[in-house]
Amino acid sequence: MASSLISRQFALSLQKNLWLGAPACRYVSKAARKTQLEFDYDGPSMKTSVPGPRSQELTKQLGEIQNVGAINFFCNYEESRGNYLVDVDSNRMLDIYTQISSIPIGYNHPALLKLMANANSLSTLVNRPALGILPPENFPEKITESLLSVAPSGMTRVQTMACGSCSNENAYKAMFIWYRNKERGHNIPSDEDLSTCMINQAPGCPDLSILSFMGGFHGRTMGCLATTHSKSVHKLDVPSFDWPIAPFPRLQYPLEEFTKENAQEEARCLEEVEDLIVKWRQKGKPVAGIVIEPIQAEGGDNHASPDFFRSLRNIAHKHGCAFHVDEVQTGGGSTGKFWAHEHWGMDDPADIVSFSKKLLTGGYYHKDELQADKPYRIFNTWMGDPSKNLLLAEVLNVIRRENLLEEVMRSGKALLNGLYELQAQYPGILSRARGQGTFCAIDIRDDATRNSLLLKARDKGVLLGGCGDRSIRFRPALIFKEYHVHIFLNIFNDVLAQHK
Amino acid sequence: MASSLISRQFALSLQKNLWLGAPACRYVSKAARKTQLEFDYDGPSMKTSVPGPRSQELTKQLGEIQNVGAINFFCNYEESRGNYLVDVDSNRMLDIYTQISSIPIGYNHPALLKLMANANSLSTLVNRPALGILPPENFPEKITESLLSVAPSGMTRVQTMACGSCSNENAYKAMFIWYRNKERGHNIPSDEDLSTCMINQAPGCPDLSILSFMGGFHGRTMGCLATTHSKSVHKLDVPSFDWPIAPFPRLQYPLEEFTKENAQEEARCLEEVEDLIVKWRQKGKPVAGIVIEPIQAEGGDNHASPDFFRSLRNIAHKHGCAFHVDEVQTGGGSTGKFWAHEHWGMDDPADIVSFSKKLLTGGYYHKDELQADKPYRIFNTWMGDPSKNLLLAEVLNVIRRENLLEEVMRSGKALLNGLYELQAQYPGILSRARGQGTFCAIDIRDDATRNSLLLKARDKGVLLGGCGDRSIRFRPALIFKEYHVHIFLNIFNDVLAQHK
Repeated sequence: MASSLISRQFALSLQKNLWLGAPACRYVSKAARKTQLEFDYDGPSMKTSVPGPRSQELTKQLGEIQNVGAINFFCNYEESRGNYLVDVDSNRMLDIYTQISSIPIGYNHPALLKLMANANSLSTLVNRPALGILPPENFPEKITESLLSVAPSGMTRVQTMACGSCSNENAYKAMFIWYRNKERGHNIPSDEDLSTCMINQAPGCPDLSILSFMGGFHGRTMGCLATTHSKSVHKLDVPSFDWPIAPFPRLQYPLEEFTKENAQEEARCLEEVEDLIVKWRQKGKPVAGIVIEPIQAEGGDNHASPDFFRSLRNIAHKHGCAFHVDEVQTGGGSTGKFWAHEHWGMDDPADIVSFSKKLLTGGYYHKDELQADKPYRIFNTWMGDPSKNLLLAEVLNVIRRENLLEEVMRSGKALLNGLYELQAQYPGILSRARGQGTFCAIDIRDDATRNSLLLKARDKGVLLGGCGDRSIRFRPALIFKEYHVHIFLNIFNDVLAQHK
Repeated sequence: MASSLISRQFALSLQKNLWLGAPACRYVSKAARKTQLEFDYDGPSMKTSVPGPRSQELTKQLGEIQNVGAINFFCNYEESRGNYLVDVDSNRMLDIYTQISSIPIGYNHPALLKLMANANSLSTLVNRPALGILPPENFPEKITESLLSVAPSGMTRVQTMACGSCSNENAYKAMFIWYRNKERGHNIPSDEDLSTCMINQAPGCPDLSILSFMGGFHGRTMGCLATTHSKSVHKLDVPSFDWPIAPFPRLQYPLEEFTKENAQEEARCLEEVEDLIVKWRQKGKPVAGIVIEPIQAEGGDNHASPDFFRSLRNIAHKHGCAFHVDEVQTGGGSTGKFWAHEHWGMDDPADIVSFSKKLLTGGYYHKDELQADKPYRIFNTWMGDPSKNLLLAEVLNVIRRENLLEEVMRSGKALLNGLYELQAQYPGILSRARGQGTFCAIDIRDDATRNSLLLKARDKGVLLGGCGDRSIRFRPALIFKEYHVHIFLNIFNDVLAQHK
């Protein structure tokens, strides 16, 4: 691997040369050499437009097997490292999208390579157990060392799952089971419950609902999809449930300048939530749970205030609904706290918190009372994957050892300030810069401009993702430092300056 | 690993000593030494009752974190090998359940250990990509080398997914999308489609259905669960869809002795299928797809004839429904063919074939026309896991190199014949021995007796699983040889002889 590392000194001087010719404000990271990551590259390096010829060839090949309409390009993961993704045409891009926000500490982190090269890991890699019946000896220890060491406030129980959708599906099931036992007053189903459930009919399969929010995204399997409302392409043609959908506050940014207007907007949405709960109870489809993201990510990086979430939590309590915080995209540190809901400052923030992506394994934490009362009610063959727990434990070690959450706060501040400056400089193109930690976004004039900017940035060596109708979302790894922010801002500035 | 291998010679002599004291017929495998697996143990070895003290201690520990009602015991996967699962109390059991049928070529297969120890695998293990947008360079090659090399007849397209439930959920979505485009006559949704789908309403979220069979099992996420009808514990308290459920033939065994009765029973079920399709169309919930297992596994190892499946396929054609064969449990070789549906002898057996478990990755094959017409319709963050594709490619190499499907036929014949003999010997306890390859089952007098026999066999070193109301299912790995069959039959014979 070392053989393909270009000389750091040479790369830095190259960057400086590039800066000389570029317009407008220039960021120079004086601290760069001090905090530089040992295993990182020094900057983007573009050899072809993207996708390059090799990517195009492979896309054609894969097109014989799958729909390739979403393929950006093919990657050389062996050569990728740190914040840089290398493609099969030797283009090296600063990755601020990180596999849809799912790479916690960059590519080929030495700690993870070392762990996987360790002979002790081999058995975990080749013997995937049915965790729910035959767990490995170190399972309680690894879960304690990994997931439980970052458990949300008030939670000591966690269930692993294979992916985000499975996590949310099972979290919903846990809420339904909990709600029905509460309705019964005990956990002994009637004969009618048992017989009707086998044919999908009430009361065994009850008409319960989950309240979700317009703009929310919770996955694409059919239960999750009934609570997803970000884009029609996800939902079109798939049968769904008649479940209540509340408006998510549409805030004005920067939040601190619009406190009064935003509070009014949030109050309106909360009122609507209560109305919907009452209405759906009257319809005979009581709301068993409320599901919400701390920041609506896929739906456009929509924020709400801690007050909003606290009030919503209270409404859930008041109406006997479980409160499920979906941290699949927000969890894992990129907001500057390990869980985005920690920004609400609550001791009892949720009944269920689901995760996946940066946590490498899916799953959900839950309050004691949300644990299914019998075995096999929340169950499947694999129930997660211990090899991912191994990786997660090491990722958490790195996060702690390198104080990455502090770094995220520092980089995030630089990023958001940079976005504010660009927004002031290009008011016709950019608006609504917003974020927490490095979990930032900015709106672009329109969808077409957004997509054009994304492609132009990519051709200059910066990989970004879109979200919502016309936003760009920033989802760097936790090892994204201030000097990476500066590299990005300089390139994005060039892209904007050259934009017609 | 070699240090804990007990001398093969010593173990064989121990086995022979055990045989001396046992009643009834005794199987002695003369060929054992010749075909013995190099990395396998020689027989069970029990030190404690199961779960032993260490398992009990760990179960208590895990009980603070999760519901542990389904935990059998904790495993020492490092020491497990071949057909033998070793627990944390040093009990070594002949494993005929294989992690709910999901271990293809036994524990710690040397070929897999070698693959994972190879430095070239490291990058795949630590850099999990978002496969739908940024696949690795070797993705088309690995897919071709692994999944496409065993593609069902008539299929050249495959989509990987993380697990069995996700595979079926997405297969259902693919069928819904295909059906709606067929209804439209084109693939351009109306404005009403686009707006109504965002709020879970028709026509955007249409009232389409999937026809499934009583006794079927297709997973536990909410779409899958609406087609699962094996046990109430899976379904109770979870809202569902009003979808049609047909009877699955209840055949008499051995099949060759009841051809006329079974043909009548199958005709009755097929007639009901057609009635349901018509009825649900009239109800405004047309059947977009039919989903069925080639052998209902979780539901009790219920078989049907090739004729039944051929007729069902024709009914699907006739009524314009997609035909989805769920091979999550049956796929991967244990029926003696790589896919159980190959026993039907059809060129065009299905529109969709889903898999998981022994294939190590989830996913589904599909006919060209079942591919979603646009990107991001069938999508999620990970879309499978390339590290599992790596393992699968090697598993397939081993299956070919060692002619494991032939071995399965041989072992399966020995197993089924042995079950017939035991059934003749214990007619008050055993009935309905049945199977294809080593994918066998037998019915026990009642649920309580079944569970008691399972525990007694386990205490004597044989790990088995139940299915249906009162069946035992046999799900050995593909490296389960005739002499393993004999070890099992001898022990099971002892268990039955001692059963009060």
